[in-house]
Amino acid sequence: MIQTPYLLFLGDAPDQLSAKVAQGIKDWRPDNAVGQLRMDGCKADVGLTDMTLAGAKAAGAKTLVIGVANRGGVISQAWKEVLISALAMGYDLASGLHNLLSEEADLVAAAQEHGRTLHDVRIPTVEYPIASGVKRKGKRVLAVGTDCSVGKMYTALALDTAMRARGMKSTFRATGQTGILITGDGVPLDAVVADFMAGSVEWLTPDNDPDHWDVIEGQGSLYHVSYSGVTMALIHGGQPDALIICHEPTRDHMRGLPGYKVPPMSAIRDMALTLAQVANPDCVVAGIAVNTQHLSEEEAVAYLAKVEAEMGLPAVDPFRHGAERLAEALAAI
Amino acid sequence: MIQTPYLLFLGDAPDQLSAKVAQGIKDWRPDNAVGQLRMDGCKADVGLTDMTLAGAKAAGAKTLVIGVANRGGVISQAWKEVLISALAMGYDLASGLHNLLSEEADLVAAAQEHGRTLHDVRIPTVEYPIASGVKRKGKRVLAVGTDCSVGKMYTALALDTAMRARGMKSTFRATGQTGILITGDGVPLDAVVADFMAGSVEWLTPDNDPDHWDVIEGQGSLYHVSYSGVTMALIHGGQPDALIICHEPTRDHMRGLPGYKVPPMSAIRDMALTLAQVANPDCVVAGIAVNTQHLSEEEAVAYLAKVEAEMGLPAVDPFRHGAERLAEALAAI
Repeated sequence: MIQTPYLLFLGDAPDQLSAKVAQGIKDWRPDNAVGQLRMDGCKADVGLTDMTLAGAKAAGAKTLVIGVANRGGVISQAWKEVLISALAMGYDLASGLHNLLSEEADLVAAAQEHGRTLHDVRIPTVEYPIASGVKRKGKRVLAVGTDCSVGKMYTALALDTAMRARGMKSTFRATGQTGILITGDGVPLDAVVADFMAGSVEWLTPDNDPDHWDVIEGQGSLYHVSYSGVTMALIHGGQPDALIICHEPTRDHMRGLPGYKVPPMSAIRDMALTLAQVANPDCVVAGIAVNTQHLSEEEAVAYLAKVEAEMGLPAVDPFRHGAERLAEALAAI
Repeated sequence: MIQTPYLLFLGDAPDQLSAKVAQGIKDWRPDNAVGQLRMDGCKADVGLTDMTLAGAKAAGAKTLVIGVANRGGVISQAWKEVLISALAMGYDLASGLHNLLSEEADLVAAAQEHGRTLHDVRIPTVEYPIASGVKRKGKRVLAVGTDCSVGKMYTALALDTAMRARGMKSTFRATGQTGILITGDGVPLDAVVADFMAGSVEWLTPDNDPDHWDVIEGQGSLYHVSYSGVTMALIHGGQPDALIICHEPTRDHMRGLPGYKVPPMSAIRDMALTLAQVANPDCVVAGIAVNTQHLSEEEAVAYLAKVEAEMGLPAVDPFRHGAERLAEALAAI
């Protein structure tokens, strides 16, 4: 568990998009961050107060989170001075980069000297069990996509927000690096050893109150041949009571797989539901989340109405219009 | 790649079943072993010539393979004297035990001193790629099971044997520890990191002659909630042209999962085929392999006839009666 609140390190971000981890924290857990730290030449701004290490420390910040990815996902030498100063001032560091904090001898030495922790959320730190398949108390909803990167994390976060707003008991359960940094906890599922994938999802979503929902971030797609095994482990380890189908309607082909068409939502609905019912015979498909970012407002509204009529399920863009109708559907389960 | 031929180390095996790795090598690759080495009190015998380290060395043996698993999968102190002598005499060592050879300081030191290699086939030694999904030349057949441990490895080995006997080009592709020790090569799929599972299967079954078949050992089951993600990666990474459904008809419940019923073969057939056709639209289900070890000969023959009529596919017990009819079905594809 990463200590909050954070100071978000934007470094020398080359553009706004490279700060998507920081943006996600600002969008979904603004209370987790006291401000942002930008170096000279930084081209990103997530709209938080600019702070120095000392100023943020005085405001209570406990962890400096690397909220930016530069090309190649490396920890640049330009950042090192700031990171080492932060450790000396009593900050922990957290990062989701491929280049691990723990691979950098100078950071490891400084952390040791000052008794601080380096959190590399890209790699698991827990010895997960083999999945037992035993039915757990409480409820779970899983976002499943027709493709990778269609908005499953944003859907889950928006759903969690809408459920809490209705007074429902809900916990967002992160399964990827960005989600883990946003919430401070989770399982980096793509880095878990094959035999323990489903067990790690069971571990992430334990017994809970009968009216509590775990909102599980999805990964990959059953129809994405590179990552479908990870999706499968979520479906069987999560033993969901409800599925939300996530879709991006403007894709030519599956992400990174030219020649592979995006399947229709109905194919994912049928396949995911059949597989989910192996672990939980009561599982239902509760609704549809469409990522309409490449459609105009008018196109988006028309598309959602068409999908809703065809599929007989509430269809919303949870980021554009909110996830209230999905939360409502879950409240009725 | 492990150097052959082997000397099979049976150690102080408490019973015949504990020597199943050695038995598998004897059954399927007898040419890979010059003999067996048994210590005082050994209760297993796979029917090879008993040899000393020196005798087997003179007969050409290059690797001492630990063909036995004792309780807990540990490398016992009682074995150490033999293993260290073997290294000193120029043998490599190979093991599929959980307790790695490389975790034992005395073995590591002896291997280093004598310039020998320790092969721990339980863990990957290759950096596998992310799966690309690109169509490969040559043909592939994958064994998929209704449950774990229903005979997928034996089915694949018997099929490979039958195909070669017909003059077909065929290579057994091991995806588990026992299969790797039997053939000297393969991918320990259950120990591969999630993101690289499907890529490791692509790596294992590369471009080949148009009339060459890779016979891929299956793992887990799409309906086994602990390991289904591994099965999924085989289906999408293997991009099979043909599937063989494997079944054990006397199971009460899924292995290790009380409360989970074994699915009907028709469910696995439909689910596996739909998923396989994502990666290879031409994939077909070619036949059925039934593990009839708990049935009498008469029961087995009657059961196979019933399955064949119901499913409209050749149904055989490849271990009991041979896999010729499955090979014939593949030859027609």
